Amino acid sequence: MTAPGAGRTTDLPTRADVESAAARLGEKVRHTPTLTLHGDELGVPGRVVLKLELLQHTGSFKARGALNSVMVLDEGTRSVTAASGGNHGAAVAWAARRDGLRADVFVPGTATPEKLQRIRDYGATLHLVEGHVGEALEACREFSESHGVPLVHPYDTVETVCGAGTVGLEIAEQVPAAELVLLGCGGGGLYAGVTAALDGTVPVQPVEPELCPHLHAAVEAGEPVGHGAAGAAADSLGPPRIGRLGYETAARHGTTSVLVDEESLLAARRFLWERVRVLAEPGASAALAALMSGRVAVHPGSTVVVVVSGGNNPALP
Amino acid sequence: MTAPGAGRTTDLPTRADVESAAARLGEKVRHTPTLTLHGDELGVPGRVVLKLELLQHTGSFKARGALNSVMVLDEGTRSVTAASGGNHGAAVAWAARRDGLRADVFVPGTATPEKLQRIRDYGATLHLVEGHVGEALEACREFSESHGVPLVHPYDTVETVCGAGTVGLEIAEQVPAAELVLLGCGGGGLYAGVTAALDGTVPVQPVEPELCPHLHAAVEAGEPVGHGAAGAAADSLGPPRIGRLGYETAARHGTTSVLVDEESLLAARRFLWERVRVLAEPGASAALAALMSGRVAVHPGSTVVVVVSGGNNPALP
Ligand SMILES: Cc1ncc(COP(=O)(O)O)c(C=O)c1O
Ligand SMILES: Cc1ncc(COP(=O)(O)O)c(C=O)c1O
Repeated sequence: MTAPGAGRTTDLPTRADVESAAARLGEKVRHTPTLTLHGDELGVPGRVVLKLELLQHTGSFKARGALNSVMVLDEGTRSVTAASGGNHGAAVAWAARRDGLRADVFVPGTATPEKLQRIRDYGATLHLVEGHVGEALEACREFSESHGVPLVHPYDTVETVCGAGTVGLEIAEQVPAAELVLLGCGGGGLYAGVTAALDGTVPVQPVEPELCPHLHAAVEAGEPVGHGAAGAAADSLGPPRIGRLGYETAARHGTTSVLVDEESLLAARRFLWERVRVLAEPGASAALAALMSGRVAVHPGSTVVVVVSGGNNPALP
Repeated sequence: MTAPGAGRTTDLPTRADVESAAARLGEKVRHTPTLTLHGDELGVPGRVVLKLELLQHTGSFKARGALNSVMVLDEGTRSVTAASGGNHGAAVAWAARRDGLRADVFVPGTATPEKLQRIRDYGATLHLVEGHVGEALEACREFSESHGVPLVHPYDTVETVCGAGTVGLEIAEQVPAAELVLLGCGGGGLYAGVTAALDGTVPVQPVEPELCPHLHAAVEAGEPVGHGAAGAAADSLGPPRIGRLGYETAARHGTTSVLVDEESLLAARRFLWERVRVLAEPGASAALAALMSGRVAVHPGSTVVVVVSGGNNPALP
């Protein structure tokens, strides 16, 4: 087994791979709009462009990776399985139904009733698993192997990553002046995909809550390590660990995540609701929090894109 | 006095007037994005493009007309006044503060506590008036005259209408394939403005709730007439009567409003929330309701723009 770390050759997806995913997905996913804000509204210089990915089918960017994964299954596949306490579960349920497949979704006991209802609404069969998302993923793996049902991974396969990466292709088209892209990082699929799509033309900065520092801990350890997850964003940014593709993307770019505290995260969420009427979930507010709290500095006059990645935890108003 | 009706010459604003307003407003208002949905999501053929004007400053398009009105005031003006149970009040408060003016806003006792708080948050002085918006407008007129403070009308001045019309200029730019624009009509300012902006290139269809049929009643009567207002959208689509500019716009185009029932309106609102994560207020859901309920027919393959005009009544989730 090769030791993980710098210098090794990897099979990270390329921009061309993401373009293939985009061609496959076509208009089956929504091309989500952007909204430009003056930085002074946020207390930063420059311009801030929100990529409103919460308007995607199922309320998060996860629909892209899920559908891309389902579309490349062998012909004759009749069902899929997935594990998720939230957005990925809804996304797989939606993608499966769209293509006439059965979906068995394993959810941890910690998932909120609303998210479970949403997964059911999209027609999936729910399997409640005691414990956290790690246990649900374990049960899902067993089910997949014993029943021969393909597992749609939430963040660590090329198909999921390339689907998520189509967000980056849209950003390149919509915001040619972008000088930095900020996004929330959980398992790292969104980060890996958008980085592949932008292919070095624009730096991509992953952001994690202090209470879910998976990438941060992995970079310190020199390899993906298990880490606890807590706080308001744990249901979206709290996977068992950072994925291999996310970790290797960071290693290749010599990057680590910026960490934001809970208060900043919730303040960013409140700003989005009060001043923009965008009801982002906590995990989708982390990227903006990095900007508003000053953890990421903005050059005067520059254009920063912030991915607002989901809107499925709408307790705010 | 000239009798209102067809054939008379009017002073309706022109596209050039709206363009002047757009130049004046520049980037002081947000250029709101559009989101394209497949009609089959909504049960209609063709494409539906949502113009997401709830993402505007203050949560509704009213910011455009309010700021345009404030910007043309005589130099040396120190304060303004307005009457509104909701969106116009917040818009005037915001515009006044932006330009360093004092704002006295007259609100009817029927306004919701949240909307009042919002107006206060933007720094205005609130005057609670017993009764409905008609009584608040009356008190505001008196205040304006006795104190010599300019009144910013919610829908029936050229400045307000041209500000609102800048939504139409953006639609022309963002959706060149548009074949029809649907929008909610209360006092008719948005309708008159967008119609002026599109200048005959795209038909504009106003939509009213059955319980607030002001334009509809005026067209039947041959002149603006007072009409009661009730139902979920009354706080935005329930002015004392249709404005002269809105009425004359309809008369000139031989148009009347399409009416939608409460159930359709709330179903459209629910769709926007459940399937698009857009939290529109009821008055901003009327236009989509006309489409989803089949009150407005769509040709297969055509592109219909629906203005989602505000998001300040967020009880849904
Ligand atoms: C709304 C939202 N944002 C961000 C993420 C992080 O994505 P990833 O796991 O690909 O890093 C997730 C993951 O579920 C999410 O649901
Ligand atoms: C959200 C919303 N939509 C539509 C309207 C109708 O606008 P108008 O009065 O210009 O017809 C209003 C008016 O307050 C509104 O607040």
